[in-house]
Amino acid sequence: MISFENDYSEGAHERILQRLMETNRVQQVGYGEDEYSLSAKEKIRAACGDPDADIFFIVGGTQTNLVVIDGLLSGVEGVVSAATGHVNVHEAGAIEYTGHKVLTVPEHQGKMDAGELKQYLADFYADPTHPHMVYPGMVYISHPTEYGALYTRAELQSLHDVCRAYDIPLFLDGARLGYGLTAPGTDVTLPDVARLCDVFYIGGTKVGALCGEAVVFPRHGAPERFITHIKQHGAMVAKGRLLGVQFDALFTDHLYFSISRHAIEMAEKLKQGFAQRGYRFFLDSPTNQQFIILPNADMDRLRDRVRFSFWSRYDDGHSVVRFATSWATPAENIDRLMAILDEK
Amino acid sequence: MISFENDYSEGAHERILQRLMETNRVQQVGYGEDEYSLSAKEKIRAACGDPDADIFFIVGGTQTNLVVIDGLLSGVEGVVSAATGHVNVHEAGAIEYTGHKVLTVPEHQGKMDAGELKQYLADFYADPTHPHMVYPGMVYISHPTEYGALYTRAELQSLHDVCRAYDIPLFLDGARLGYGLTAPGTDVTLPDVARLCDVFYIGGTKVGALCGEAVVFPRHGAPERFITHIKQHGAMVAKGRLLGVQFDALFTDHLYFSISRHAIEMAEKLKQGFAQRGYRFFLDSPTNQQFIILPNADMDRLRDRVRFSFWSRYDDGHSVVRFATSWATPAENIDRLMAILDEK
Amino acid sequence: MISFENDYSEGAHERILQRLMETNRVQQVGYGEDEYSLSAKEKIRAACGDPDADIFFIVGGTQTNLVVIDGLLSGVEGVVSAATGHVNVHEAGAIEYTGHKVLTVPEHQGKMDAGELKQYLADFYADPTHPHMVYPGMVYISHPTEYGALYTRAELQSLHDVCRAYDIPLFLDGARLGYGLTAPGTDVTLPDVARLCDVFYIGGTKVGALCGEAVVFPRHGAPERFITHIKQHGAMVAKGRLLGVQFDALFTDHLYFSISRHAIEMAEKLKQGFAQRGYRFFLDSPTNQQFIILPNADMDRLRDRVRFSFWSRYDDGHSVVRFATSWATPAENIDRLMAILDEK
Amino acid sequence: MISFENDYSEGAHERILQRLMETNRVQQVGYGEDEYSLSAKEKIRAACGDPDADIFFIVGGTQTNLVVIDGLLSGVEGVVSAATGHVNVHEAGAIEYTGHKVLTVPEHQGKMDAGELKQYLADFYADPTHPHMVYPGMVYISHPTEYGALYTRAELQSLHDVCRAYDIPLFLDGARLGYGLTAPGTDVTLPDVARLCDVFYIGGTKVGALCGEAVVFPRHGAPERFITHIKQHGAMVAKGRLLGVQFDALFTDHLYFSISRHAIEMAEKLKQGFAQRGYRFFLDSPTNQQFIILPNADMDRLRDRVRFSFWSRYDDGHSVVRFATSWATPAENIDRLMAILDEK
Repeated sequence: MISFENDYSEGAHERILQRLMETNRVQQVGYGEDEYSLSAKEKIRAACGDPDADIFFIVGGTQTNLVVIDGLLSGVEGVVSAATGHVNVHEAGAIEYTGHKVLTVPEHQGKMDAGELKQYLADFYADPTHPHMVYPGMVYISHPTEYGALYTRAELQSLHDVCRAYDIPLFLDGARLGYGLTAPGTDVTLPDVARLCDVFYIGGTKVGALCGEAVVFPRHGAPERFITHIKQHGAMVAKGRLLGVQFDALFTDHLYFSISRHAIEMAEKLKQGFAQRGYRFFLDSPTNQQFIILPNADMDRLRDRVRFSFWSRYDDGHSVVRFATSWATPAENIDRLMAILDEK
Repeated sequence: MISFENDYSEGAHERILQRLMETNRVQQVGYGEDEYSLSAKEKIRAACGDPDADIFFIVGGTQTNLVVIDGLLSGVEGVVSAATGHVNVHEAGAIEYTGHKVLTVPEHQGKMDAGELKQYLADFYADPTHPHMVYPGMVYISHPTEYGALYTRAELQSLHDVCRAYDIPLFLDGARLGYGLTAPGTDVTLPDVARLCDVFYIGGTKVGALCGEAVVFPRHGAPERFITHIKQHGAMVAKGRLLGVQFDALFTDHLYFSISRHAIEMAEKLKQGFAQRGYRFFLDSPTNQQFIILPNADMDRLRDRVRFSFWSRYDDGHSVVRFATSWATPAENIDRLMAILDEK
Repeated sequence: MISFENDYSEGAHERILQRLMETNRVQQVGYGEDEYSLSAKEKIRAACGDPDADIFFIVGGTQTNLVVIDGLLSGVEGVVSAATGHVNVHEAGAIEYTGHKVLTVPEHQGKMDAGELKQYLADFYADPTHPHMVYPGMVYISHPTEYGALYTRAELQSLHDVCRAYDIPLFLDGARLGYGLTAPGTDVTLPDVARLCDVFYIGGTKVGALCGEAVVFPRHGAPERFITHIKQHGAMVAKGRLLGVQFDALFTDHLYFSISRHAIEMAEKLKQGFAQRGYRFFLDSPTNQQFIILPNADMDRLRDRVRFSFWSRYDDGHSVVRFATSWATPAENIDRLMAILDEK
Repeated sequence: MISFENDYSEGAHERILQRLMETNRVQQVGYGEDEYSLSAKEKIRAACGDPDADIFFIVGGTQTNLVVIDGLLSGVEGVVSAATGHVNVHEAGAIEYTGHKVLTVPEHQGKMDAGELKQYLADFYADPTHPHMVYPGMVYISHPTEYGALYTRAELQSLHDVCRAYDIPLFLDGARLGYGLTAPGTDVTLPDVARLCDVFYIGGTKVGALCGEAVVFPRHGAPERFITHIKQHGAMVAKGRLLGVQFDALFTDHLYFSISRHAIEMAEKLKQGFAQRGYRFFLDSPTNQQFIILPNADMDRLRDRVRFSFWSRYDDGHSVVRFATSWATPAENIDRLMAILDEK
């Protein structure tokens, strides 16, 4: 069975494992003050073009979202998200558990429109009853989105401008950031992200690490006592080296970017394969997630030999399904998938 | 510089790293349903002598404590802990963050006395105003304690009996459980723990793993929808294999126990070394944490060459300090420490 | 200035004040165990036709909603509400503050459709990723709704049936219940509400009391230790007599119903007045809240002489506004309002 | 049966009821913007000698404590209280429910010692592991304490100074403030309280009102968006006039102080009565709560004719009990109590 179910089906890139081996018996202090974490932070600062960025390593994505959002909002504030935002749908209410409402605006392939955001904020403050409502206290976007879509630099700039006008932070969930930054046609770079966002994270779990997300607060923007906040939310690891070593490897010799580019190339190959066979796409994604409109007969036929994700019902005879490539996808797997498709 | 600062200064036992390497490219499903996690759970069930145990892997200790405690308590209940309990002191209010009070009883080398617990519970229900107070809803103990002390089997049985009488669960924090189970003179086995506790965890982070704690609910005792609860608290890892592979290795060929025993042997060696040199002990610990009453002159002298933990002031001329051994401590490090002590 | 801004612009019905006077110096125990509270509960049980109902008095509506919802949901559950539900919009995130997501279904004049609810629940459990999502743990409706609409008995029965099928409680927010039960054409009685809901409240604040809502759990349905839960949420009043005396008066000689009926008669009069003058209604409400499509010129003209609530923009020249009558509205006020309208 | 069980056994002072009657049908806006609330706030500002004080009316004491404490603390902070503080014992975990730990220091008749507080704070910051602990973010005291004791002005000044040194707010729970300000020998005035505290409340529930506490933030010290915070915690009443009218009456013609003084006179009479009959006092309280060491035989004898509170066991033959007087205690009740005592 080959799997395109997601981008976390394998372990970690071998250079990461290698470094874990090499550094294994070197004694280090705990809680993220080890030398590998310090080195990784310096490399990430350089890659972001921001020598003043505050950086923290956290194990997983939902954890990062809840720690960041609860760390930035005041008690009466909520976070504005597209309706399809991961925080609104697939985190089991983790944000609400921290006491904050997820406020929703319409989504467009998972993206938020700056104009609609602006209108939402304007309407909120125009409503005389707004002191009885949850204040919009920050904006959450994902890049790529849950549908594999990307913002342009101009779109990020517009969201940034709206956030500045209302003095609320812009938070970019970069669980798959690598796949966004290396996608064909994108004009968004890591320094752009650092310049336009108040906080974002560089996803490791889905881009070659065993685990780990690097939270970046550009321009010394971390909240006071954020370490204690992380600890209180159960998000501090004793052996911070585990995260430090991994990000240090990922940001050495551009590994993060080269393995991301590989996933994109594999996605292109997969896309062409489906297209050449006449399959339709639910939307046109430039990243590692491809959404295909699959005849249900194909669904049944593939089930035992290929893993992929059911997304939604399309019509009586079709389903929307997701095929994801990753840093680890071998070209052969795509060839095998195509061969299976051709058997019919 | 050699370090006895804690038991998480190194990476992981090499057999664990080896298995991470070997399994690295095998595609697996996420969120703990991978084959390594399933295998590890079977091995742990066998080691506990409980084929019906529900088992979950969680990254860290504070996270485990908050997930378990918040998962078992109802809204109006708190957790009873010895005053020195980790949940009461060094978790940055993680338990209170989940909405629950930590209720304290006296500590004896970090241990809770069953008689005092019983009196606490009896007094609570005897107080006519108790509906205006936090109900004691579970009991938290650590084994070994934060002071390296151990419960006897009879003491655990007594705590178990009190909990049964009041129908509240007994939770054992086993962050260092391996070092407790292999300590000289202990009559407590892993099946005893599984029999006498309603939930406990087998610590990996401090006993040879990169990260990870195995939460065990004996006798199918896990709360309903615990997976969602874990997710909501940000404690679910996408690549559950990272934890599964590690615990599978730790519970293969008794690795968990053999490496724990090594730490105990090193602690014995360290203990003898200090004793032979006339140092006094703050308390007599049979486990891997040794609490020494160190003259402040020694403190200064060692500072640049050996790392250890300051615990508390003893008197004008002395401090209580902690030296910890671990699965990774080489005998040479203890020889070097003794040599440094002898230089004076 | 006359006000139709809401139904809480005056103090309390005089029979309530009279009883507060008469009972003032009689010493009573606190926290709701006073004889007036006990008497009021008996009268409410009789009015509900449920001798086994558990009853609690709470000061205000938002407080009641959060206490009830947080009292019935488990940690991983949320409450399903129509998108316009008070708990979703105008309670400043009080429900999320207790850690629970408000899950929304479409609204129809503020009402929830049983078919749509059923589909929502079916879709939830059909989604294989639902363990990563918030479980729908109860259903919240308001009767009358925020738009003055009413459920029929058959509609309540259908909602009840869906809730039974999924084994989740149905909670009815009756902040204005009196105005619903006495509305023309309704076939819903208080015993119907008690029979079809798992918990509901009888609003006092908006129906003649100084403050207070009577929470009813039919059939001994209150959660365990609910008194402590109320206390923990800051919702217990020391002088429970204040609430007891009021509800005792409201449920003596059908006062609650007769004053509600007065409000409905005044609403009918107001409705006819507007209709006769050619004003359009945003929707046809049978209760004490009337939503008029008011030309903006009228808005400006009335502003200094009559208070009412702006609801929403209708079109360039019109706004939707709410006029509310209450137990305290004198017929003269409506005559004066009509006279002002006629001045133009 | 006569009752000295507490100071909330009766309704409200008749001047308050009178004003509720007089103002009953005057239409007012809701949520605390009514003219009575505005007037009451002005009068309280004058009584505090602080024209810039921010004032909010809240229904009850536990509610006030949780709203204020959760409003002032950041996420990683807890509140420092004497071990016997109401927030630590008798509020069913309301503070922890808001996510904050109650940090305790020793108590002396319920009072906190400024020197011990200072040491606690110094020790906290001296501990190198303090970032893994809950930060002390504010100080909670009660005046009078739960044991009827009072701070001197010098003691309040010292607490104030420590709080200034550590830049944390000092919060005074004045549920019984009137009885403290009018006690014999006190040198603390209401302007002193306003000058030395960052927030405090003037208790109404226990001092002549039906319900209500006036929260005072001197020097425009209220947190931003505190109205929304109150709403979110379910603590906003629609008919704010209920609280406004009451405090307006209490602060007209010094009613709050004159009725407090009456309670103190009654306490003095009761004290003398017990003393003359040879009873011992558990402690010497200058306020309306008197703690007597009562022989158990007397306990039994009085039970059916007099209500009072059991406090704690004293020895095999005696109990500590509390007799409370209030604004409503008639001198005859004390005479009757003494007559009953003399029957033996």
